[in-house]
Amino acid sequence: MTIQKLLIANRGEIAVRIIRAARELGIATVQVYSKADKDSLAVRLADESIEIGPPQASKSYLNQATILAAARTTGADAIHPGYGFLAENAEFAAAVEAAGLIFVGPTAQSIRLMGDKVAAREAAAAAGVPTVPGSAGRLDSADAAFALVEKTGFPVMIKAAAGGGGRGIRIARSAEEFHHLMPQAQAEALAAFGDGGLYVEKLIEGARHIEVQILGDGRDVIHCFERECSLQRRRQKVWEEAPSPSLAPAVRDRLCSSAVALARAVDYRGAGTLEYLYDDRSHEFYFLEMNTRIQVEHPVTEMVTGIDLVCEMIRIAGGEPLRIRQDQVRVRGHSIEVRINAEDPAKGFLPSPGTISALSVPAGEGVRFDSMLYQGYTVPPFYDSLLGKLIVHDKDRPSAIRRLQRALAELSVEGLATTKTLHQALARDPDVQAARFHTAWLEPWLETHAASLGTVAPSPTAKVAQ
Amino acid sequence: MTIQKLLIANRGEIAVRIIRAARELGIATVQVYSKADKDSLAVRLADESIEIGPPQASKSYLNQATILAAARTTGADAIHPGYGFLAENAEFAAAVEAAGLIFVGPTAQSIRLMGDKVAAREAAAAAGVPTVPGSAGRLDSADAAFALVEKTGFPVMIKAAAGGGGRGIRIARSAEEFHHLMPQAQAEALAAFGDGGLYVEKLIEGARHIEVQILGDGRDVIHCFERECSLQRRRQKVWEEAPSPSLAPAVRDRLCSSAVALARAVDYRGAGTLEYLYDDRSHEFYFLEMNTRIQVEHPVTEMVTGIDLVCEMIRIAGGEPLRIRQDQVRVRGHSIEVRINAEDPAKGFLPSPGTISALSVPAGEGVRFDSMLYQGYTVPPFYDSLLGKLIVHDKDRPSAIRRLQRALAELSVEGLATTKTLHQALARDPDVQAARFHTAWLEPWLETHAASLGTVAPSPTAKVAQ
Repeated sequence: MTIQKLLIANRGEIAVRIIRAARELGIATVQVYSKADKDSLAVRLADESIEIGPPQASKSYLNQATILAAARTTGADAIHPGYGFLAENAEFAAAVEAAGLIFVGPTAQSIRLMGDKVAAREAAAAAGVPTVPGSAGRLDSADAAFALVEKTGFPVMIKAAAGGGGRGIRIARSAEEFHHLMPQAQAEALAAFGDGGLYVEKLIEGARHIEVQILGDGRDVIHCFERECSLQRRRQKVWEEAPSPSLAPAVRDRLCSSAVALARAVDYRGAGTLEYLYDDRSHEFYFLEMNTRIQVEHPVTEMVTGIDLVCEMIRIAGGEPLRIRQDQVRVRGHSIEVRINAEDPAKGFLPSPGTISALSVPAGEGVRFDSMLYQGYTVPPFYDSLLGKLIVHDKDRPSAIRRLQRALAELSVEGLATTKTLHQALARDPDVQAARFHTAWLEPWLETHAASLGTVAPSPTAKVAQ
Repeated sequence: MTIQKLLIANRGEIAVRIIRAARELGIATVQVYSKADKDSLAVRLADESIEIGPPQASKSYLNQATILAAARTTGADAIHPGYGFLAENAEFAAAVEAAGLIFVGPTAQSIRLMGDKVAAREAAAAAGVPTVPGSAGRLDSADAAFALVEKTGFPVMIKAAAGGGGRGIRIARSAEEFHHLMPQAQAEALAAFGDGGLYVEKLIEGARHIEVQILGDGRDVIHCFERECSLQRRRQKVWEEAPSPSLAPAVRDRLCSSAVALARAVDYRGAGTLEYLYDDRSHEFYFLEMNTRIQVEHPVTEMVTGIDLVCEMIRIAGGEPLRIRQDQVRVRGHSIEVRINAEDPAKGFLPSPGTISALSVPAGEGVRFDSMLYQGYTVPPFYDSLLGKLIVHDKDRPSAIRRLQRALAELSVEGLATTKTLHQALARDPDVQAARFHTAWLEPWLETHAASLGTVAPSPTAKVAQ
């Protein structure tokens, strides 16, 4: 292994995850931390740690110069960006390499290409990967846009070319709405991203979100099959699983092959995910975008394939070729991940930072809890609300759901509200159990079920004393 | 599922394990507890709990009448005995069935047959399973014994027919020693077990301990491959793995087939383990005994096969036929379990009960920690010292050892001494890494390494603040 000491330019559960992988590879770890994260689990677990500034991310986790200085000070020879923060910042990846360090991720060029949604769409089309019907590139005039929309039909989405994560999206269901929304969208994109470029896509209603995990070494690319993440709230994934319960084997083959074709076309290096919309009535899938980083939901793929994605991406960054052949990647059983956030589902998902006064985590066969928690830890109010991920694995989907229910019943995080009750309600829901859902399913469900989410399900500690 | 409410007639980590399995099967749980176990994790997790007496096991966990009364009081319709205590007590199994309840385990008849080591040996021979050369049955005269020993050659072991767990065993390396030890052994067996019956076996020096996991439903039997548990101290297993690192595929096939043949011959029902000695120079294996219960080290088999053994044994007890065909049982990767005991390896494994003042448990990809621990828990001094089992799984044995090292570094149990440092030293040892060991390897190793086991390895919380 070329890498001797890895700096983790992130925080929370993913920082812990990366430290674990590095330790298994015999690599020393440096954890950077803001003043708010001095007592974090990642700081406790890393071999070394170094403060990089105040709590505000812009002054610490997003401060490229400070992070590079921390790498110099500690003698780190590689930087893992995790997800979020600087993970998909091409300028940062280039700066890391310019400083003579290894960036654990793809080339700056790949990040830049896939970060431009229009360019990514063009690359997909060139590789023969289906995309959502719409503009092949950015639209510079409202007339050109309208001419196109008349072909695809309504409803359509108007998206900012420089946007992402659901920001700057508008839906037009008629020509009137379209003419009304276009100038607004253009002005807002310019204000928000410094780029008024727009593109237009047909809105596939009732579609599922399915994504393909890939690993590349710059020469070859393999896929590790797909995940389904259709249960979303405000375009944030809530519950993820592998394999997708809605794909026929022949469609799965086509989908995964298309992801490999696109990643090969751009000589992709590292771990990446190609996101698709999937229409389970027509069995058509449409490429949406590529995430050029490790994803929150990567563990479900690890559980079903037995491949440690974070170890593999570090090995690849260290210069090793892919160690796994496509025919060695097999799926065993079914895995589900639910996100345990410090949010109160009974109060509109109000953030709920605080101190963990008591903690009891689930364990046993087929249960994995990847978290940033320990008893006595104070969750700071400055960052996203993800505390940890509860991941289960069992022989099939019904068994995995039962295991999830058991594990949720064992999980007890005292001192703050979490999304545990949401997941308990979802795991009991007949539509979820039958995998009858799509990306717009959860939000209306939440409106009708909000009242019941405050009810704490019978706790494992509740018992009848005899 | 026939079983509605399961009483767990055990304590500690295995009670927690059984509660988890029952919950996944939708079965309510009743945890019995002695006064010393009122605050145990099993009591916290179970749906109901009921006190059964004072701390001494003879007055609580071994008190059959009280346990049956607890089942009546709580309306339990089945009893899981775990391991140890009443798990291999044929009289208890019969009493449970006589009370109209389901015993989660084999028939009383199977327990009785396999509990008599001589009868078990005879059953093995009848099923064509090799046994260690020696007396085919109990020897009632010293002359008969000597005539036999002259054929097998020295060294030999003299064992009490009614013994078990290594008790009442003597080794004779010459005719003189043999004539000297036989009357002693006979008198002691009579005093200890009320039965002076003896049998004699050739001592296979340098042999490994390999055991085969089987599942039967009274009609059919399958095997779930083998475990190797050669690292033992005072005949107690310390470190277990699956698959065995020392078996050639052809030998593995013969070994596993022999276990199925013997279990079929006795119409075995439930989970069971057939223990063998294996001589890796001659590639011969010899049946030792059958354990008619779930074993401490069952999780390594679960990790590599994906089969939940405790769920399966409960399903079978509930009257379901085997759900798994032999050709569906496949081994993926390698798993290792190490026992975390409340003992101080630097002080001759002195028991170390106490209160857990702080607890940090390992997690992440391929790591499972099955324990009875929580922060603030006081380990009572009355029972065996097993606190929990750290189990890892990875693609191959070297990776699994690296993962074990990572997980051990993360494990922190403050407030008492544990065997963590022993396992850290073993995981670093070149012989362990090369799987060059046998059942008599660990004890001399401990004598030469005792001094270093007190040295706490660099803790994951030790770091260089910058």
